[in-house]
Amino acid sequence: DRRKPGKTEESSPRKEQDKIEFLSGIFEGKTTGAPLAFMIRNRDFKSGDYDHLKESYRPSHADFTYEAKYGIRDHRGGGRSSARETAVRVAGGAIAKLFLRKTGIEILAYVSQIGKIKANVNVEEIRFETIEHSALRCPDKEASNKMKFLLEELKKEGDTTGGIVTCLVKNVPAGLGEPVYDKLEAELAKAILSINAVKGFDIGSGFQSAEMKGSEHSDQFLMENGKVSTKTNFSGGIQGGISNGQDIYFRVAFKPVATLMADQQTINKSGKSITLHGKGRHDVCVVPRAVPIVEAMTALVLADAWLQNRCAKFN
Amino acid sequence: DRRKPGKTEESSPRKEQDKIEFLSGIFEGKTTGAPLAFMIRNRDFKSGDYDHLKESYRPSHADFTYEAKYGIRDHRGGGRSSARETAVRVAGGAIAKLFLRKTGIEILAYVSQIGKIKANVNVEEIRFETIEHSALRCPDKEASNKMKFLLEELKKEGDTTGGIVTCLVKNVPAGLGEPVYDKLEAELAKAILSINAVKGFDIGSGFQSAEMKGSEHSDQFLMENGKVSTKTNFSGGIQGGISNGQDIYFRVAFKPVATLMADQQTINKSGKSITLHGKGRHDVCVVPRAVPIVEAMTALVLADAWLQNRCAKFN
Amino acid sequence: DRRKPGKTEESSPRKEQDKIEFLSGIFEGKTTGAPLAFMIRNRDFKSGDYDHLKESYRPSHADFTYEAKYGIRDHRGGGRSSARETAVRVAGGAIAKLFLRKTGIEILAYVSQIGKIKANVNVEEIRFETIEHSALRCPDKEASNKMKFLLEELKKEGDTTGGIVTCLVKNVPAGLGEPVYDKLEAELAKAILSINAVKGFDIGSGFQSAEMKGSEHSDQFLMENGKVSTKTNFSGGIQGGISNGQDIYFRVAFKPVATLMADQQTINKSGKSITLHGKGRHDVCVVPRAVPIVEAMTALVLADAWLQNRCAKFN
Amino acid sequence: DRRKPGKTEESSPRKEQDKIEFLSGIFEGKTTGAPLAFMIRNRDFKSGDYDHLKESYRPSHADFTYEAKYGIRDHRGGGRSSARETAVRVAGGAIAKLFLRKTGIEILAYVSQIGKIKANVNVEEIRFETIEHSALRCPDKEASNKMKFLLEELKKEGDTTGGIVTCLVKNVPAGLGEPVYDKLEAELAKAILSINAVKGFDIGSGFQSAEMKGSEHSDQFLMENGKVSTKTNFSGGIQGGISNGQDIYFRVAFKPVATLMADQQTINKSGKSITLHGKGRHDVCVVPRAVPIVEAMTALVLADAWLQNRCAKFN
Repeated sequence: DRRKPGKTEESSPRKEQDKIEFLSGIFEGKTTGAPLAFMIRNRDFKSGDYDHLKESYRPSHADFTYEAKYGIRDHRGGGRSSARETAVRVAGGAIAKLFLRKTGIEILAYVSQIGKIKANVNVEEIRFETIEHSALRCPDKEASNKMKFLLEELKKEGDTTGGIVTCLVKNVPAGLGEPVYDKLEAELAKAILSINAVKGFDIGSGFQSAEMKGSEHSDQFLMENGKVSTKTNFSGGIQGGISNGQDIYFRVAFKPVATLMADQQTINKSGKSITLHGKGRHDVCVVPRAVPIVEAMTALVLADAWLQNRCAKFN
Repeated sequence: DRRKPGKTEESSPRKEQDKIEFLSGIFEGKTTGAPLAFMIRNRDFKSGDYDHLKESYRPSHADFTYEAKYGIRDHRGGGRSSARETAVRVAGGAIAKLFLRKTGIEILAYVSQIGKIKANVNVEEIRFETIEHSALRCPDKEASNKMKFLLEELKKEGDTTGGIVTCLVKNVPAGLGEPVYDKLEAELAKAILSINAVKGFDIGSGFQSAEMKGSEHSDQFLMENGKVSTKTNFSGGIQGGISNGQDIYFRVAFKPVATLMADQQTINKSGKSITLHGKGRHDVCVVPRAVPIVEAMTALVLADAWLQNRCAKFN
Repeated sequence: DRRKPGKTEESSPRKEQDKIEFLSGIFEGKTTGAPLAFMIRNRDFKSGDYDHLKESYRPSHADFTYEAKYGIRDHRGGGRSSARETAVRVAGGAIAKLFLRKTGIEILAYVSQIGKIKANVNVEEIRFETIEHSALRCPDKEASNKMKFLLEELKKEGDTTGGIVTCLVKNVPAGLGEPVYDKLEAELAKAILSINAVKGFDIGSGFQSAEMKGSEHSDQFLMENGKVSTKTNFSGGIQGGISNGQDIYFRVAFKPVATLMADQQTINKSGKSITLHGKGRHDVCVVPRAVPIVEAMTALVLADAWLQNRCAKFN
Repeated sequence: DRRKPGKTEESSPRKEQDKIEFLSGIFEGKTTGAPLAFMIRNRDFKSGDYDHLKESYRPSHADFTYEAKYGIRDHRGGGRSSARETAVRVAGGAIAKLFLRKTGIEILAYVSQIGKIKANVNVEEIRFETIEHSALRCPDKEASNKMKFLLEELKKEGDTTGGIVTCLVKNVPAGLGEPVYDKLEAELAKAILSINAVKGFDIGSGFQSAEMKGSEHSDQFLMENGKVSTKTNFSGGIQGGISNGQDIYFRVAFKPVATLMADQQTINKSGKSITLHGKGRHDVCVVPRAVPIVEAMTALVLADAWLQNRCAKFN
């Protein structure tokens, strides 16, 4: 369960045993063509832990919006808006990755920024092992140490921080993605923005491109080992919504964790001002744990794109 | 046709008369419930203009990816990957806006950055008229003048630039958007990333949130005129994928226009190196013309969300 | 559990306790807006019972087609092609019926034919109680007795029979259904043909209409208690794909149960001829047990149509 | 344009030139991968012809239901509920057939009944040419002559009749169709019931199966030229929602044409009784013209199923 490294003190001490129970689709160790249904039960869970939140609208949480939409709210831990929900995404993504392995496509995400500390990473050299050996899933050792120190400081303050995950997709064949409304980058953006706490997505040159000149940004085509390649890759591996065979890479911005150990002002259901006192178990920074979630959503999008593209070719 | 301001010399001198022909769905001035079908014919179009591109893969264009995917390519002007395609989005968005007007929802997009020049805008005071009075659709007059000068310089060089559009959605009721995979920000991100030349999307505090602390980022709830409101709006009007009644705002990064007047190196279909010579009619900066496209896609997403939310309420 | 009347000797003596476990969507006795997920575990199930079928292609079953499609087959009881699968349809339909009750729409299905014995039913007088009081769910007592006798005879022979279920939907408002490709009768036909063992569907005058003249078949409009009504109802309550406010009624043909107690010739996976010997527990006629399944699928289609129609009305 | 044989006096003397204008997706005679958009303009059309129907609800037409649903109605000829709409289905089906030709799948529909006159057809011997040589698209010459006589009689009376189209699909590979809710017969049923004037669909043994015994209906598997085949084909080529390699065949019931030359009683929008006088141009029997529409819808379903099945196979 990569969603739960639990290697540093900064991670939440919650010890949920994410056990997957497969309900259908597997027979004698093989998939049968039936839908794969699985279930992860919430084991480490006491209703009482959340009683003090029954009437409160926690700041920057979904308590108020769920109640505004549905007129009713299961207050025990955020319900569907809880990050617990992402456990099934990681499980689903793992299956998509098994499939992608056969196509050669490889997905590597890592922490590239926490607070103001930015990692310095050479994407050519990055390896899965380097990322996973780091407690914070940051392949730049120096930055990683600074991040660790920052998180320790924030923990003492009862505060939290945001960060950035960068995702790299290698060995993508040219031709994946559908043009116009379902461009590959549009599908990726939707999948990524559906992850809890994500506030931004940019691909290739991204927000940086706003400041660039066309002459700088031009990804000149050239031949490399008999294959069409590009000299630079500001496009981030996608042109006109379709993969061009170069690496796809994008950044994902995560806001700071909303649950604080420090006191917070807010209101309750009746509109009365209340003070929330920090309680329970929460992360200082969710970003290292978010790495496998970003990978999972990316794997699901690429597996879909791969199958859709294959289907379109009839010969 | 707001897609085509044509007010400054920086805009492309192409004079396409975007005439909409309605094919179905309207009878005696009213919609009939049948799908609204309409068509915009490409009038100002000479096949010959594109003959020199038949065999070329233009850098940072979709020539190569379309050919890789489909094995065939209509080389006359980019086909579906042309920005011409967005004309129908603006037309569709105009209909969505007519609908949204009845709900009170208002959408305002503007140019907030061109190259390195950033506009200084007070979102409380911004008005549609101020935006449209500006040739560059930038409500900050000082920045707008600098941008104009920058574009003139770039034009002389045969170069282009990127920029940023900011979009503001006002009077959104609480409750729009579906949780988990179809969060409102996820739908917006997909719609926006499906626009040509877009490289990034962020909402509320966006990429900035990565550097923030939880204590700074906390959108404290309070009562305002008997309504639940928030003191700050780092969430950008959406929490847990559902609108909370505050303004929705997001930024959209556009890469520089790929077609240059200056020469560019690239290859042709046979893999031979060639030099492309600038020719034809192209924008120095697409961002002012992109404003109504951003608004249109936003309007379509919000109209869908409004209807979907209403449908869920049965009483 | 109406799927399992178990009142007559003709029904299968299998005693599966269809216990529903709700996994999500309910909190303190109310739906929360989250998807209702539930699970019915197969309790009365011994893998060994099916061992003799591991290599066989049972005639008129899906053994061969599943293996042809997926290259692998879970031979224990038919898997997804088993009628056990319909238990979840009945559970889902029960929820749709709770919803429809608020709209006033009522669904009544009954057995109208078994083998060659046809029931004589006055649709104006039919009541839910009359149907459920009949062990065979046939409201015509005389026919019901004959059917019972027929089923006893067939049981002795180790044989089975087909039959027809008629479904009546009352108090449908005018306006449900979408025209052209998603006509209300088209949605009903798909839902019904997706039920195991169904071989035919016809609505209103149905196959009989092929022999009728236009002058006979004309559903003359008239006013009745200030409401638009029709003198006859050959249309079966739907015109141009949209409900007209009259009763919807349709017939559903079920083939005879394929599993026989008598011996059957067939082949196995290797293509060798084999003889299947009847064994285990099977119905002589599935039609009485199919009544709630037909109702459930009808309820799901009408609940969808009701919501879709409401959504289209914006005032 | 096979939808418009116009060979006999029984067909409507309307001379609409169904000219297809392709709007996108074709370049230099080849499809480009872009959606094929085409348009058939209604040429032979005078608004005035329909003025007398502006306020009337024609019996067994969709005038009333469209008005009940949308609150507005384009009275000129039925709008989307007109059989004119099916012209695009035939065009779309023609493209699906071009595709299916490469897979070997062949679709043959024919008139098997008009009024009470039933054709006697040997499905083994039926050929496309035999069907198309018949003015009524009925391959049984004797029945065809009787049908012709019947239609002449009805024409004199100003009356109309219904009929049945039988459709045969040959060379279907085993494995097409998705189980459970999207069974191949369910998709066919939906597509067929979406055709104007269709009141029934049955497949294989169909409604006849209700009267059959399991021992009669059992499609015994056997080997034939090294391939799995069945001795009988009561299943109609589909088992458990998946094609089994045998011929698919089904029947489609059409109601009589609703527009009569004889007078009809009905009401108008205000609820007042009125008499409609036959006027204009209408068919005595739509069934021969419906043959290519049934084929087209069948081709579209099978092309989808073929692609979906291929997509599922990854090796």
